[in-house]
Parts: sequence; C-alpha cells; structure tokens
Amino acid sequence: MTVEKFCFQIVIWLGVSPSESLHSCRAMLNQDKDGLMLEVESSLAQQSMAIPTQYPVMVIGGAEDKVNGRSILTAFFESAGGSDAVIGIIPCASREPNIVGDRYYQIFNGMGAKQVQILDIRRRDECDDARWLDILSSCSGIFVTGGDQLRLCDLIGGTPLIQTIKDKVKTGDLVLAGTSAGAAIMGAAMIAGGSSGESPNQSLVDLTQGLGFIPELLVDQHFHNRNRMARLLSAVAAHPDKLGIGIDEDTCAALEGNGTFQVLGKGSITVIDPGHLTHTNHPRAEEESPLSLHNLKVHILSQGDRYNYKERLVLPNS
Amino acid sequence: MTVEKFCFQIVIWLGVSPSESLHSCRAMLNQDKDGLMLEVESSLAQQSMAIPTQYPVMVIGGAEDKVNGRSILTAFFESAGGSDAVIGIIPCASREPNIVGDRYYQIFNGMGAKQVQILDIRRRDECDDARWLDILSSCSGIFVTGGDQLRLCDLIGGTPLIQTIKDKVKTGDLVLAGTSAGAAIMGAAMIAGGSSGESPNQSLVDLTQGLGFIPELLVDQHFHNRNRMARLLSAVAAHPDKLGIGIDEDTCAALEGNGTFQVLGKGSITVIDPGHLTHTNHPRAEEESPLSLHNLKVHILSQGDRYNYKERLVLPNS
Repeated sequence: MTVEKFCFQIVIWLGVSPSESLHSCRAMLNQDKDGLMLEVESSLAQQSMAIPTQYPVMVIGGAEDKVNGRSILTAFFESAGGSDAVIGIIPCASREPNIVGDRYYQIFNGMGAKQVQILDIRRRDECDDARWLDILSSCSGIFVTGGDQLRLCDLIGGTPLIQTIKDKVKTGDLVLAGTSAGAAIMGAAMIAGGSSGESPNQSLVDLTQGLGFIPELLVDQHFHNRNRMARLLSAVAAHPDKLGIGIDEDTCAALEGNGTFQVLGKGSITVIDPGHLTHTNHPRAEEESPLSLHNLKVHILSQGDRYNYKERLVLPNS
Repeated sequence: MTVEKFCFQIVIWLGVSPSESLHSCRAMLNQDKDGLMLEVESSLAQQSMAIPTQYPVMVIGGAEDKVNGRSILTAFFESAGGSDAVIGIIPCASREPNIVGDRYYQIFNGMGAKQVQILDIRRRDECDDARWLDILSSCSGIFVTGGDQLRLCDLIGGTPLIQTIKDKVKTGDLVLAGTSAGAAIMGAAMIAGGSSGESPNQSLVDLTQGLGFIPELLVDQHFHNRNRMARLLSAVAAHPDKLGIGIDEDTCAALEGNGTFQVLGKGSITVIDPGHLTHTNHPRAEEESPLSLHNLKVHILSQGDRYNYKERLVLPNS
C-alpha cells in the first residue's frame, strides 16, 4: 500500500482532511520499519470497529457456507475491497486444484469482485515465476483453499510467493484468508494430521512447521465437528509456548490487526492457553502414554466474542 | 464401622497402641455426628497415602480391564477388604443384569473375596425388601455396573437401598465403585445422554438428576474414547456450580475420603472447573446455538496425579 493510498483510506474511514492524514502518514514514515508497521496495524485496528469487515487475516475452520448467507466469504470479499477487490485463489492444498479453484472463482466473481485469478501452482519451482508474482502484486485478497496442509507447505512453503504474501499482509496491502488446510498453515507450528477417540497422547497428533503467518497460534480446524480436542491438547503439550486455537466448521477467527480476533460464523472457537501451565509430563512420557497438563486456561468463544491473542485475554462482551 | 473396628484399623495403619487409638476414637465420639464424620474421613485420608488401595469411592470411566492386570478392579477389591471383602454387585443399569452381574461375580470371586452377591433388583418396589437390605448390610464393597444410567436411576434412585449405601459410605463401612453408567450417577446432576461432533450447545447433552453420592461432581465417562468434550462443556454451561469430570475408559477417579482423588488406570481424567467463569451465553442461547464459556480452568490428569475437588486444586506431583 502506498503512503498516498493509505492516507486515502484514512480519509474515507475517519473523515479527516487529506492534509491531516498525509501529515500523519509522513510522521509514521519517519519511524523505523517495525514502528511503522505497528502504527499501520494500530490504525487498521482502530477502524475495524467502524468497518467490521476489515480483517487483515481470516482463519476459517473449513466447510464455510458457500451457498446461502455466505457470511464468512462475504466478510473476506468486503475486506479485500468489495467491488474493487482483486482476489487471488491458491488451491494448491487440493489434489483437484482446478475444481476447487473454480468453485471459489465463481463465488467471488459472482459477488462482483473486480478481478479473480487462480494461482494454480503445480510445482514448487514455479513459486518464483514472474507470472504468479505479477498476479500476486495486483491482489488485494488471497484465499487459500482446503486440501492437505502438508501438500500446501511442500509446494509453496518458504518460497518468494509466501514471503511476498507476508510482506503485503504486513503493510496492509493484502487481506489473507485460509480455510481448513489453508487455516492449518497459519502458525509457526502446524498440525499435519492426527486422530481422535483417545486420551491426549503424543501419538495422537503429527506436528511439523507451518508457514508462520501468525507464529504464536497453533491452529486446528473442523474442530468440534471432527472431535479434535484431544489432538489439539496433545499438540499444545508439545508446544506450550503456543496458543491452541480450535476452529469449528463455518466459523472464522477474523483477525483485526491489533492482536485481537473476532469470532464470525455458526460454530465456536476453542482457545487453549497453556500460559499458566504448572506441570506436564510431556518431556518424559512415552509416545502413547496419556499426557498430563495442569492448569490450562480454556475459552469457548462464539459469534461476536473477541479475544486478544497477544495479551491472552477475552475481551468483555459489548 | 464400629468404634472398635475403626480403632483396630488405626492400630494396623499407624502402629499405635490400641489404647491410644481407642482414646482417639472415644474423643471423636464426643463430637457431633458431622464432626465425627469429618474426623473419620480425615483419618481415612491420611492413611490413604500409606495404603493406596483404600478408596471409599471409585468412579470408573467404563471398559476397565477385566482380563489382564485388572488394576482398577483389584484396587476396588483391596479397598473393600481383600480376602475379607463381602462384595455386592448392582447390575441394574444393564438390560442383561444376570450376564453382567455374573461376569463381575466371577472376577471378584476369582480374586478371593470372602463373599460375592448379586443384587439383581428388577423392580423399584424391591428396593426396600429386607432380602436386599440384609445383603447390603453385610457388604464391605458395592460395585455398580454399566448399562443405562436412566434405567439405573429409575430402578433404584431415591430408595432405602440408595440411602443405606450413602449412610454406609459416609461412616466408612462401605466402599462404593461405579463404572460407566455406574459412574454417571455419582453427581447430583447427571448426563443421561448426548452426542458429539458439534460445537458445544445445549442440544448436545441430556441432563437430569443423579444419585448424588458426590454432589459437586458432574461426571462423564468413556470420555476421550467417545469424544465427549463438547457434551461435558455443554453440561458445565448448564451447571456452572459443578465441577466437570470426564473419565476415560479403564481409568478411575479413586476418591481418598478427604476431598481428593487420585488417577488410576491407563487413560486420563479431564477436569473442567468453571469456578472463575466470567461469561456464558447459556441463559439466553437458543437450544442449538453455540455456547460461550470464558475463563474455564482445565486439567488433564493421568496416572498418579491427584486433585482436590473441594478446593479445586491439582496437588503437586510427588
């Protein structure tokens, strides 16, 4: 986002004069890069109350409504600019990327996006092709579909494509949404697979590295729908520095840019906060032995609830 | 338990002289009844460290090992007196009480109990029959089998039989164990049924009254094995004054008589403590709407972990 474009948004949001907003932006530019980012995030966040569809990152628990109200997909479309949106779809997690890609193409096109493109990348070495990076540079929104999160990471993890997305999200030039596998990859640590129906134990979950868009989160999806509490608990035991986030289907953690997210959709988001963990037997437990986790803080959040994942606090209901 | 019998146990446990223990017991008898009960519980509890099989109440998550190590059933057998044990089996939760009753009869008989009887009560009006009450009066241990907890409550809930069991447990004359349905009935509130695979919501769980042996607990069983986290969360939302206890299969909350339990067996016990709940939408939520529960304390406990359910504290691992 250029300084001018950012200022123009401030003009629209706040109704302040262009000269006031330009002055404010130039003042930010005199700060170091991180400082600027904080200011941008803070400004975006303050406005998110007034424009509730402005979510820089949306983490969707899979199986979002694509037919009826489509509230989550609509929130993404609006966040990406509505009728001005240029949306890129990354269907690489799927083994049927053309079918999955086309489905979302039809949806966002039908909503009236200015342009929709499918980044149907089939090989890892395509990820620094100018062809895809050019498309990406024009995008105001990127939507990462479901499929297999390992396949997704293998294809595009650690490539210039991902770095460009990170940079553009950081500067407020891009809204990023991921559903199912596209949600799983959000953290620095990632749940690659696992099972259910057992006491929490290490063998219940396969862990690897994620793409690190929101490093502090450890995301699980289709959460209560596929009974994944025990596997997320097992994952948190292995990564007690992370915050476990279990997102139900057709439910979204809509990040507001200032360390908070709001719950959108028809299910719940389960937060497992091991910040005050007093004991776990994880380091010495056998692979299939039941785990102990003492003094977890857990929140079940539903539509409209808001949570600060930096401060690890539920925000009071308005 | 008579004063003399109790004193004799103290002699065995502590190695104190009979006159010392008799003096101690007589002193207790000068207190009021509740005070005496507290002293009895306290004394039993202090000894439970030395005699870890001494558990006045055992709440078992179902499917306990009946073939190999049989650690939980052995702990019950030992608590009830070992070779001096007179064990009564209540198979009323089952629609095949003779088959289920006989299975446990063979097990406890095979372990060398002095006597094993099956209280095969088929009609509610049998519950004040001298026939059953006489058997009960001789028992040192009662084992309540699995089946359907509603059937069990309908048959024997609120009858002289239950009151006698409560009285005998209170005075330390009886060890009570319940597995599966026999565990579900332990609290004042009871989960009668429910399902899984959904965000926590009111329709996910059927609640009714339990038999109230340990009123403060809200017990669920076959817990992680049948993915019951969401239903226990839903139950806790309806009863935020209770402590949710989810017990896995072949796992037991072995109450020690002083407000603590120890975890025995191969799975885990999940404690959901809503004592610091700051918000729930339960009172105004629709039957199938996702529930919010903010600031739950959750513990995953495994073999050897101990928890004080009166103080709601995990005890430090030794």
